[in-house]
Amino acid sequence: MSLDAFFNPRSVAIIGASHEEGKIGYIVFTNFINGLYKGKVYPVNKKTEPILGYNVYPSVLDIPGDIDLAVVVVPTKFVKDVLSDCVKKRVKSVIIITSGFAEIGNDGKKMEDELKKIVRGTRTRVIGPNCLGVFDSNSNVDTLFLSRKRCGRPGEGNISFISQSGAVGSTILDWLSVEEIGVSKFVSYGNGMDVDESDLIEYLGSDPKTKVITAYIEGLKGPGKKFMEVCRGVSKRKPIIILKAGKTKKGTEAVSSHTGSLAGSGKIYSSAFKQCGVIEAGTWEELFDYAKAFATQPLPRGERVLVVTDGGGFGVLATDEAERCGLNLTNPSSKLKEKLMKHVPPYAILHNPIDLTGDATAERYKLVIEECLKSGEYDGVAVISLFQIPTLDEKIVDYLLELKKHGKPILACAAGGEYSNKMSKKLTQGGIPVYPTPERLIRSMKVLIDYSRSR
Amino acid sequence: MSLDAFFNPRSVAIIGASHEEGKIGYIVFTNFINGLYKGKVYPVNKKTEPILGYNVYPSVLDIPGDIDLAVVVVPTKFVKDVLSDCVKKRVKSVIIITSGFAEIGNDGKKMEDELKKIVRGTRTRVIGPNCLGVFDSNSNVDTLFLSRKRCGRPGEGNISFISQSGAVGSTILDWLSVEEIGVSKFVSYGNGMDVDESDLIEYLGSDPKTKVITAYIEGLKGPGKKFMEVCRGVSKRKPIIILKAGKTKKGTEAVSSHTGSLAGSGKIYSSAFKQCGVIEAGTWEELFDYAKAFATQPLPRGERVLVVTDGGGFGVLATDEAERCGLNLTNPSSKLKEKLMKHVPPYAILHNPIDLTGDATAERYKLVIEECLKSGEYDGVAVISLFQIPTLDEKIVDYLLELKKHGKPILACAAGGEYSNKMSKKLTQGGIPVYPTPERLIRSMKVLIDYSRSR
Repeated sequence: MSLDAFFNPRSVAIIGASHEEGKIGYIVFTNFINGLYKGKVYPVNKKTEPILGYNVYPSVLDIPGDIDLAVVVVPTKFVKDVLSDCVKKRVKSVIIITSGFAEIGNDGKKMEDELKKIVRGTRTRVIGPNCLGVFDSNSNVDTLFLSRKRCGRPGEGNISFISQSGAVGSTILDWLSVEEIGVSKFVSYGNGMDVDESDLIEYLGSDPKTKVITAYIEGLKGPGKKFMEVCRGVSKRKPIIILKAGKTKKGTEAVSSHTGSLAGSGKIYSSAFKQCGVIEAGTWEELFDYAKAFATQPLPRGERVLVVTDGGGFGVLATDEAERCGLNLTNPSSKLKEKLMKHVPPYAILHNPIDLTGDATAERYKLVIEECLKSGEYDGVAVISLFQIPTLDEKIVDYLLELKKHGKPILACAAGGEYSNKMSKKLTQGGIPVYPTPERLIRSMKVLIDYSRSR
Repeated sequence: MSLDAFFNPRSVAIIGASHEEGKIGYIVFTNFINGLYKGKVYPVNKKTEPILGYNVYPSVLDIPGDIDLAVVVVPTKFVKDVLSDCVKKRVKSVIIITSGFAEIGNDGKKMEDELKKIVRGTRTRVIGPNCLGVFDSNSNVDTLFLSRKRCGRPGEGNISFISQSGAVGSTILDWLSVEEIGVSKFVSYGNGMDVDESDLIEYLGSDPKTKVITAYIEGLKGPGKKFMEVCRGVSKRKPIIILKAGKTKKGTEAVSSHTGSLAGSGKIYSSAFKQCGVIEAGTWEELFDYAKAFATQPLPRGERVLVVTDGGGFGVLATDEAERCGLNLTNPSSKLKEKLMKHVPPYAILHNPIDLTGDATAERYKLVIEECLKSGEYDGVAVISLFQIPTLDEKIVDYLLELKKHGKPILACAAGGEYSNKMSKKLTQGGIPVYPTPERLIRSMKVLIDYSRSR
């Protein structure tokens, strides 16, 4: 059963749409009528006074046309009946935002089991309960009850992100909105009573608008075997990067008091991830450090990475990290060195990292990297540029972007303040991701290489 | 011999001050006449046409008054004579920015040895050569040849930062300027021919404007024994946090091709640091994560840390990191729990981390943390606040700042976009540092505890 109606519904019913500004049912409803979403929108509420000029229906059954997606924000005790109505109405997909189910203990679990019974054997699929639901940057489906004033939404992009936790998910989404990392689809799936992480990963695996799949999970909601099979298949086509919380003993206990999931030991997860081709992130910074590399760069055809910098110290930090993560930085051949010497002053250092030194110009960067890429001695380039130095003008950005024509991954690192951030932004917008530290740059390059090799 | 003349000179000579905009000798000179520095400024150049209305002296010997600080930016071959003049003039302190000495190999090393001979036995102290020199946010001494347009300067603060590498140092300085982390004194000491890292740490150890000493080093410029002795003494009074680059085998090689220093093995450094009370940072993010905790917070009197959040997932990530770094999160006693239950709804989780859940209010945060601090069961608080949730209003900032009255360290974590960043900024300005991830928050708290215990 396709999950497409969650992301591209032609019609949406907001069950529990509220007349009262600030209420969850109000925020979710207005998300759909702010001009971005193009389908039909029907508010549903027992109180049938119009909301913002929209006719309100007492039940989803009273809506004249078909409903592709119902978003449920009614109080816990009403969810059961509302869901039955949705099944009767043959609603294709239902997002239950309401909480108070399995996550609160046994009583809640019983209620959730009743919901499961209602949809079993029907064509209605459910995301939730106890979730934020879906944000899709293309269709503008947005069921998040956090106002855009407080929680930004990222722009279009080819990274999709699923999160068991709504809080962690939305925080990261908000963070992505200022990091200018685009997102295709975001799903907070909460208790995962029907659609679980495996269903979502499978769907995203076939979604043409998703190039990279990222996930935050605490414990699996669906069966482990299904998860392994799905990931094994999808990871051959697209990278899946997962941040698993609750990896330590105490962390596992914290998960079970938080969501009632059995987190399982961190080691078991790590080895399962490895077996089915999943890339594991240690922190959410890593999750998107890696994702933005995959989202923008071709896969390297080998492991030979060149590091180029204008600040020797940064070269040292990069070298340390390369050794720590098992990336071998091979020096240019003497033939290549000879060619490079024409482009650089005698005090430049032609090892790997190449140090173009503190009087580097944009031209020097261009000529050296061009020569190295043409030589066939390198499969990817990590550029650590101190934009602060007086000799380096803004042309460096265009020069680096031109190098994309070689079809090899190029990642950059730049750190600093306003001017440096302006330059980094231009590079990012042009399609070269920029990392704030040499260490994060090198680790991301290593992950590109490892994934490329594993395929 | 005090180094005070480097930071609080009443008179400065810029030897090699340039008439040409954009030149190093022009930028350094204009740094001193932009209205911030209050002492006397004398440009020195063989070409004696005035620069921007200032009389130019052909030599430092021609300047009528005493000179506390000379900044040397002449070409390499002239440095020797210029330095002799400075000694003759009894200049107290000289910063040699010019490069082309020990860092370029044997010939350079010979030239540097000649410079050493010139100052030996005199009262003239030298920083450099091959450095950026000094930035002091109080006196506005600023010898950095990077224009403020490209490289921001941080505001006043009580963290001092010394860096062997000018490039790394200035990049971090620029980054600090947008991170709003204040700095007291910054020193890029380059080849360290006279004043080395130990001299600087010793000076900063007695500097009333410095509360925390941070350093980026690749290898020691001065003797190891002196370094150990100085650090052992100073670290009892103030935290010294060092980022050592060139810790791996390849990284060590990269250091020697970069600066000619012998980096020594990373392990030897780590164990030496431990022996003399130095806190080691793994990355420069850690360097200032730790520094901003020490700069703003009282030292904890014990190891009992409370984590409070409104997002359970963040509690899990914090718990994982706490276990990884050996921080034991003890639960509140049943007596305390009873008290807390009055302030929270029944679904709040009263373990450690305390989860105030996604409908937390500012009041709930205040009452719960207040109660925990009053109970005497905790020595510090880590607050992980999702400002995005609709129930949490801006009062949370004032409430958290009020808690400082308990005299226990409070660190915060907040992540997100514009709104969240605005709130974080207010917290930071009020004196509670904010970290972008729960992991970085927990590690910083752990470092506070470890340092407090080691004293």
